[in-house]
Amino acid sequence: MVQCDDGAQTIHTASDREQAYVTPDDSKSIIPSSKDPKYATKEVVEKVVGLLKGKFNDDQVTTNPDELLSHGVSANTYHAAAIPNVVVYAESTEDVSKVMKLANEYRVPVTPFSGGTSLEGHITCPYGGICVDLSRMNNIVELHEEDADAVVQAGCQWEAINEELKERGLNMFFPLDPGPSACIGGMMATGCSGTNAVRYGTAKGEWFLNATVVLPNGEIIKTRQRSRKSSAGYDLTKLFIGAEGTLGIVTEATIRLAPVLPTRVAMCGFPGVEEAVQAVGEVINRGVPMQCVELCDTLMMEAIGKFGNVFMPLPSLDTIFFKFQGSNAESIESNIKIVSEISQKYGGQDLVFAKNDKESDELWQARKSAHWSAMALVEGATCYSTDVCVPVSNLPKLVKQTKQDLKENGIVGPLLGHVGDGNFHCALIFKADVPGEFEKVDAAAHRMVKRAIELQGTCTGEHGVGIGKQEYLPLELGEGTLRVMKQLKDTLDPKGIMNPGKLYPDW
Amino acid sequence: MVQCDDGAQTIHTASDREQAYVTPDDSKSIIPSSKDPKYATKEVVEKVVGLLKGKFNDDQVTTNPDELLSHGVSANTYHAAAIPNVVVYAESTEDVSKVMKLANEYRVPVTPFSGGTSLEGHITCPYGGICVDLSRMNNIVELHEEDADAVVQAGCQWEAINEELKERGLNMFFPLDPGPSACIGGMMATGCSGTNAVRYGTAKGEWFLNATVVLPNGEIIKTRQRSRKSSAGYDLTKLFIGAEGTLGIVTEATIRLAPVLPTRVAMCGFPGVEEAVQAVGEVINRGVPMQCVELCDTLMMEAIGKFGNVFMPLPSLDTIFFKFQGSNAESIESNIKIVSEISQKYGGQDLVFAKNDKESDELWQARKSAHWSAMALVEGATCYSTDVCVPVSNLPKLVKQTKQDLKENGIVGPLLGHVGDGNFHCALIFKADVPGEFEKVDAAAHRMVKRAIELQGTCTGEHGVGIGKQEYLPLELGEGTLRVMKQLKDTLDPKGIMNPGKLYPDW
Repeated sequence: MVQCDDGAQTIHTASDREQAYVTPDDSKSIIPSSKDPKYATKEVVEKVVGLLKGKFNDDQVTTNPDELLSHGVSANTYHAAAIPNVVVYAESTEDVSKVMKLANEYRVPVTPFSGGTSLEGHITCPYGGICVDLSRMNNIVELHEEDADAVVQAGCQWEAINEELKERGLNMFFPLDPGPSACIGGMMATGCSGTNAVRYGTAKGEWFLNATVVLPNGEIIKTRQRSRKSSAGYDLTKLFIGAEGTLGIVTEATIRLAPVLPTRVAMCGFPGVEEAVQAVGEVINRGVPMQCVELCDTLMMEAIGKFGNVFMPLPSLDTIFFKFQGSNAESIESNIKIVSEISQKYGGQDLVFAKNDKESDELWQARKSAHWSAMALVEGATCYSTDVCVPVSNLPKLVKQTKQDLKENGIVGPLLGHVGDGNFHCALIFKADVPGEFEKVDAAAHRMVKRAIELQGTCTGEHGVGIGKQEYLPLELGEGTLRVMKQLKDTLDPKGIMNPGKLYPDW
Repeated sequence: MVQCDDGAQTIHTASDREQAYVTPDDSKSIIPSSKDPKYATKEVVEKVVGLLKGKFNDDQVTTNPDELLSHGVSANTYHAAAIPNVVVYAESTEDVSKVMKLANEYRVPVTPFSGGTSLEGHITCPYGGICVDLSRMNNIVELHEEDADAVVQAGCQWEAINEELKERGLNMFFPLDPGPSACIGGMMATGCSGTNAVRYGTAKGEWFLNATVVLPNGEIIKTRQRSRKSSAGYDLTKLFIGAEGTLGIVTEATIRLAPVLPTRVAMCGFPGVEEAVQAVGEVINRGVPMQCVELCDTLMMEAIGKFGNVFMPLPSLDTIFFKFQGSNAESIESNIKIVSEISQKYGGQDLVFAKNDKESDELWQARKSAHWSAMALVEGATCYSTDVCVPVSNLPKLVKQTKQDLKENGIVGPLLGHVGDGNFHCALIFKADVPGEFEKVDAAAHRMVKRAIELQGTCTGEHGVGIGKQEYLPLELGEGTLRVMKQLKDTLDPKGIMNPGKLYPDW
């Protein structure tokens, strides 16, 4: 719980999610009182809401309680949550600039919102204020086929971009593949990645050539030109990637596209996680072109087998899903041979292949839906999802320790991982209505994070810090590194109005 | 010319390179006078030199004029140049920290030096002060074979790293390949790339997992942990990549390594640059795994043919050098077929192959030495090298305009380019001792840069801004974007002591 206003408890945790959320009309106002001079008072925020209504079309500004709720509170997480005072649906970079100028003038907190799929509470509004919804900014503005790049708005979903490229008959795609429905804005904000990262890297690589950003004072900048490379000045694009909306709002970006290549999907069961990880390491270090290398442990395989609606029997083993990639069928075949040999060396079973593209899609879909299959393991349960990343060689140790911990604490927690990157997710299954269950899985997640940091890893490989991982930053990064981050924050956002309460509480 | 001291001209341009350079004993002191309160006076700098001598071993601190000269002035460039007052050979991160703490206390400018191969005047010392030489910090500190990463010091040369990996019997390499002798420190500082960038990306990608940095106040930070991915906080590693030593000194970094794969080298002559670029675009968009795709125009091919000591006849055409890559010989063969078909479609000749690894190395070496071959085109001449990058589709237009310009101005200027990235270099050949020749090629280089920016490109694809490209930043980036860069600079280096005069003059 965080107390924001005269002691009223205004941020709700998982255990009281079903209670009423505060609204602007609620006596438990979420606007800090005059005791906290950092932000506008409730009265000033009300004035700003009026000004916003005057500046935008009727359908762009809303204080409808349902809309406030859907913007401040997410079913994806069990972190504390609270709602904004007003939602503005931006339709252009200039719209966002207009909002920021007002917010800056009156010191009103601003929280950006695109896909709303964050798992770490990025969208919640602990200090109320304005939610800038970018979902209407969902256009591909320019498409440069020869250059294999596109200028897209922040509200574009990655799947929609890829769908449109396909519809236009282009053999290209945008290879960052975080959770379904994620949008460019949030993908940049969290420094996302996904199953394709082992081949294509992450949002922190070179997939975003530039960004148009509205700064906290409302000024619009473009970080750099569209050429594939540039060494002209600081890498400002990267400054906003992973900044979780705390330094400004990205409204547009130039993304690079990759050619769609033939793939084949196969599974291989291993005697244990350690052998699976060793085999994957050798496959990658041999330079075999793999698009994806995904681990599901035995329990996750059982969950997918039971609830994943898969057309074929699955190994009841710690299993690697391989997505082979090549410029033609011949090169894929020659690579399959290499991977089969390596897998056998580490006790892997024969590779089981999807027979055609349809089966490949279905099998991959089953892997992508692992989260839902995991939840079905316990009737009436839900899932606490967490995300850590360690050097690949430390992954078996972390997995072993985690499994032991879950066993000792009686927690059902199937694992899956982007194992080529050392990044893994644990789906901690619990019943939200049983007292103490949330606290139990929460504590297990925290122990896992601490272990990851001890193993030269990170509290989050791809989900971001948000509200959920803040407490680990000093341990992981050290005070000096955090101080530099804070200096950057204070410089670009001296009034602290950009997505306050996220990433690091003590800005 | 920049005036630093009582009106004395202290920075020398190409035309007076052969004149005496200022030294600490010179009456034309390079230390700003008391009229410029920003930096220490000459007397204070002398005091600091004494303090440095007291803190370090005798062989770590030098004011030997020859050493000052070799640290402040580079034969690689024709930009203004000046020397430091003292060179400190750092042997550890703590050494660098000790220097920075003194420099910070007494407001003495500090210029970092690693390989000294910059083409844009990064190492010169327009305000004198301390040169921190990192070349003794050239160790691989940790090597993690399973994780395919290594912790290396900033003074490591990329070729030496790769040589050591080979000697240790590891089938891995660090794929960033800028000019020979470049070191990790400078490679990060300039956001470098090279011929491998079309396959592996640049220093701004994900090859540097973290960095140990000495901040301008002497504080030591590590930007993040060693795991392959992290979304924990701002991407501070990237803040220092491309910062040209203006925000702090990188002393150590964790680099990722890639598997060494079989390659084959071939050449293909095309009717013109446009056809060559189109063919390359199609090859890349088909996803054929190419390690390198390098263009040399007809003139450059003639230069290499005459002076490159190549064992085979070369096409007298605009030519692409292909370096094919695959996990085995079969997959390379299947990709060669695809590239041959595409090349023919655009009027390319039959591919000419190096017959074995030795021939491949020699042929590639000939390409890598193009700079020297180009210089030999005109007896007694030297080379003004410049570097721009545009979206690939705009490259033929830029090349055409550039060739026309050079022809009209009677300049010999063979071209070569990392054509898969839209990045190209023009070797402007001139005689330094003929009055007006330098000015003529300098003006041509500036026109080329302006055209590149008009074509949505950048004034530098990989060499960095240094002193040579400063004037283009406002045009290329806009005042707002530059202002953000300046804010970051002022925040981390409030006294302006880190590599002053570089990247942007008006910090």
